[in-house]
Amino acid sequence: FEGFGKNLRWVVMKASEMGRSDPRKVVFSAKLGLALSLISLLIFWKEPLPDISEHSVWAILTVVVVFEFSIGATFSKGFNRGVGTLSAGGLALAMAELAHYCERFGEVWDEVAIVVSIFTIGSLATFAKLYPTLKAYEYGFRVFTLTYCYIMASGYRSNDFTHTAVSRFLLIALGAGVGLLVNVGIYPIWAGEDLHNLVVKNFFGVANSLEGCINQYLNCVEYKRIPSKILTYQAHEDRLYSGYRSAVESTSQEDTLMGFAIWEPPHGAYKMYKYPWRNFVKLSGALRHCSFMVMALHGCILSEIQAPADRRLVFQEELERVGTAGAKVLRELGNKVKNMEKLSSMNILDEVLKAAEDLQRKVDRKSYLLVDSNSWEIGKPPVVINDPQDFVKFDGLHHGFHSHSEAVLDLGISRSPESTNLPWEGANGNGNGSNFKSLTRQFSYKPGRVVIQDEADTYKSASVLSLVTFTSLLIEFVARLGNLVVAFEELSEKAKFKDPVTEGKVE
Amino acid sequence: FEGFGKNLRWVVMKASEMGRSDPRKVVFSAKLGLALSLISLLIFWKEPLPDISEHSVWAILTVVVVFEFSIGATFSKGFNRGVGTLSAGGLALAMAELAHYCERFGEVWDEVAIVVSIFTIGSLATFAKLYPTLKAYEYGFRVFTLTYCYIMASGYRSNDFTHTAVSRFLLIALGAGVGLLVNVGIYPIWAGEDLHNLVVKNFFGVANSLEGCINQYLNCVEYKRIPSKILTYQAHEDRLYSGYRSAVESTSQEDTLMGFAIWEPPHGAYKMYKYPWRNFVKLSGALRHCSFMVMALHGCILSEIQAPADRRLVFQEELERVGTAGAKVLRELGNKVKNMEKLSSMNILDEVLKAAEDLQRKVDRKSYLLVDSNSWEIGKPPVVINDPQDFVKFDGLHHGFHSHSEAVLDLGISRSPESTNLPWEGANGNGNGSNFKSLTRQFSYKPGRVVIQDEADTYKSASVLSLVTFTSLLIEFVARLGNLVVAFEELSEKAKFKDPVTEGKVE
Repeated sequence: FEGFGKNLRWVVMKASEMGRSDPRKVVFSAKLGLALSLISLLIFWKEPLPDISEHSVWAILTVVVVFEFSIGATFSKGFNRGVGTLSAGGLALAMAELAHYCERFGEVWDEVAIVVSIFTIGSLATFAKLYPTLKAYEYGFRVFTLTYCYIMASGYRSNDFTHTAVSRFLLIALGAGVGLLVNVGIYPIWAGEDLHNLVVKNFFGVANSLEGCINQYLNCVEYKRIPSKILTYQAHEDRLYSGYRSAVESTSQEDTLMGFAIWEPPHGAYKMYKYPWRNFVKLSGALRHCSFMVMALHGCILSEIQAPADRRLVFQEELERVGTAGAKVLRELGNKVKNMEKLSSMNILDEVLKAAEDLQRKVDRKSYLLVDSNSWEIGKPPVVINDPQDFVKFDGLHHGFHSHSEAVLDLGISRSPESTNLPWEGANGNGNGSNFKSLTRQFSYKPGRVVIQDEADTYKSASVLSLVTFTSLLIEFVARLGNLVVAFEELSEKAKFKDPVTEGKVE
Repeated sequence: FEGFGKNLRWVVMKASEMGRSDPRKVVFSAKLGLALSLISLLIFWKEPLPDISEHSVWAILTVVVVFEFSIGATFSKGFNRGVGTLSAGGLALAMAELAHYCERFGEVWDEVAIVVSIFTIGSLATFAKLYPTLKAYEYGFRVFTLTYCYIMASGYRSNDFTHTAVSRFLLIALGAGVGLLVNVGIYPIWAGEDLHNLVVKNFFGVANSLEGCINQYLNCVEYKRIPSKILTYQAHEDRLYSGYRSAVESTSQEDTLMGFAIWEPPHGAYKMYKYPWRNFVKLSGALRHCSFMVMALHGCILSEIQAPADRRLVFQEELERVGTAGAKVLRELGNKVKNMEKLSSMNILDEVLKAAEDLQRKVDRKSYLLVDSNSWEIGKPPVVINDPQDFVKFDGLHHGFHSHSEAVLDLGISRSPESTNLPWEGANGNGNGSNFKSLTRQFSYKPGRVVIQDEADTYKSASVLSLVTFTSLLIEFVARLGNLVVAFEELSEKAKFKDPVTEGKVE
């Protein structure tokens, strides 16, 4: 009994937790209860129409069936139910007539007609609902089959059929009416709003993931052991991972919400006939396209092949700038979507593009840090001279020294002097250190596997090149932002977002 | 009328198309029709129990409601319905007693008790079904609410309540029985089999995508205009794209199928109590983790920044080998899953690992082709000498020449002589050509945007570095295959896959 008390306390705790985190659920439950108790008053109806009380069950059932969480879902289900019931009713009445007609040919023929028609209608409706584009109307087909069979079965028995059917239909309509009234009238929950919030949330999630990736990469945070949930792409409590994962994973949720949202009448901030919900989903798709790059960036952190820490620090400033600017763009777009504002005339991408260009230029100037010349087949140094004039350059050997001292200046404090002095050999020195991992470590699941001798050498340079991958992916991410902005502008035009509040323009 | 004929022909065509592509849908529809017409024979039942015919409607309704496409879904829904109905029935009977008891305090009190109980039960059941972990039982809660209200409403009116309830319950059980018998007995459709096939299909899809990526990359096939559906991650008819997309997108489908599969009894090839369906989903997750890399590879093809064709050809052989070996591993694993065979003792990854190592070594040796020394701040050539001993190396200038000639030999026919002779300047020559694209092109949506002057120079080297990205991503893909094999082995252990047919071992 004590255990029961504990369990009860646990249930109450969980319930109040859920209620606090999303009070709409409490409101919705109370609304359903209210609608049900309102309609259940019909049970006690006595005069002048006793029929009402007798068939009150139908009104109650309708409320339970039609009452859905969001208004869009309620409308869509109500429509399905209505059309399904009415068409099945009409068809059933016609078929009942036909069955009566068949009775003339012998007593058993009407029964045959009924069974055959049930078989035919049931099969056809089921087959139709399996057709992909009709899947949204699955419920309608089910109701159609149900009603048809119900009417055929009960119609065969009662003679006073039409009268019952009409009073039943009226009660169903009454139930649907009360359900709709309560659901829409009291604190309506809109699927469109949910969709809107979901898209906004995804923007911020991806922005967090992006920043997290850059920080983690620069701080050389590695997973001691990569959670198997990440390796099998399951939900996992990792801020970086869950941010982009939920953006990637929300496809089906968005489609469902959109399917409901298009049923909703203009309301609140969405005062427009045929609101472009489709464009919200499209914008979210464009965001997804960007977040795949964040996912790939995360892949660089998950990878066994890791660039040496000192090399990363060389690009720290630029990487951070791109990350911050990119996240800023995402957050700004997210806020614009949230507040339903158009973009201001200033180009939102200027800063991040500039940062990406600077990063690329830096990579350009310092790409000697990203390759390992030791194993070059053309020897070290990689000097190729095939024009006599080139010898001139070569004569001025001080040129190389001079540039080198420039490099020291440019690298500044972020690099230790040892590695600055020896860019090429630094690559090897670090490669042998603790930062280096062989690709084979991941494959240690078969104890018998022989480690190939010069693997270590081979993956040494891979470790340096992985920094190139990280920067390239980041730049590709920036490139994809353009597409995102295009999708946003399309949405803001179609949905007639308001003009931005004019801040003092910086021009 | 002619239009109607055309429409009808179109519908018939579509229907026969669907029937041919998945005959199970035809079978299923016929099965439902059969079950319905069998149970509808009850309508004509006359003696000795007229009750049966009167309540036959309940049996028919049960068949329609419980009959689901897969056996697992049928069981799960039937279970939900059964538990929901029974518990609601019990509770309703108890509450009805309580209401009768309340009547003692005044005539109106039983009605108050009924309305209050409907409100309470309706709200609580609705609130409970909104709890995430109870979502699978959503249908059960709905049936619970429905039945409770139904019994309260109809129970209030009829006095002969218990008798009706029992005969109704028996007919519902009969309907469920006939439905289950027909659905399981005739050509059953198993959700588990669907899940199995889906996972296998994903393996082949990703393998095709991988090969497609490598081929398209090596043949420098570019999208003239990237389909906006790809940019917003919508379904699109592109073999390469749809292959990995469906693997990435199938999460929710897999979860649904798994939710049904665990309800299915041992059957066919899955003769085991508690078959490890969860591991199929996990394996598919590991495959998804790999396919994200294929997606990133595809991103390199979609990117505006493209490596020059001649540079790609240098690595053609190695890239192709990795691609072919990787796809082979995926197909082999796919076939193993399909045939439910364990891995043979030979390491399935040997070949692809070897190929990846060779690719890495080649990248290593030829990384001078992957960077653009023109803009190096330390000058060109990038020679750094800070130890007097290094001058010795430098004296032997022929060393550089010698190695260079080796390079020519090694590059072979796949490269044009001009670019071979001038690896560094070749980068520039190609960079200015048609292969080069500026990042800005993608951002041309704002006409006012000023193109920064030296952008072209900056992205020139990005174009060469993008080849590094492609190879790194490919190697990371190979690394992730290890994880996939681990997931497969776990599945093959738990699901007791059969030992592989011993081929003549190559050892």
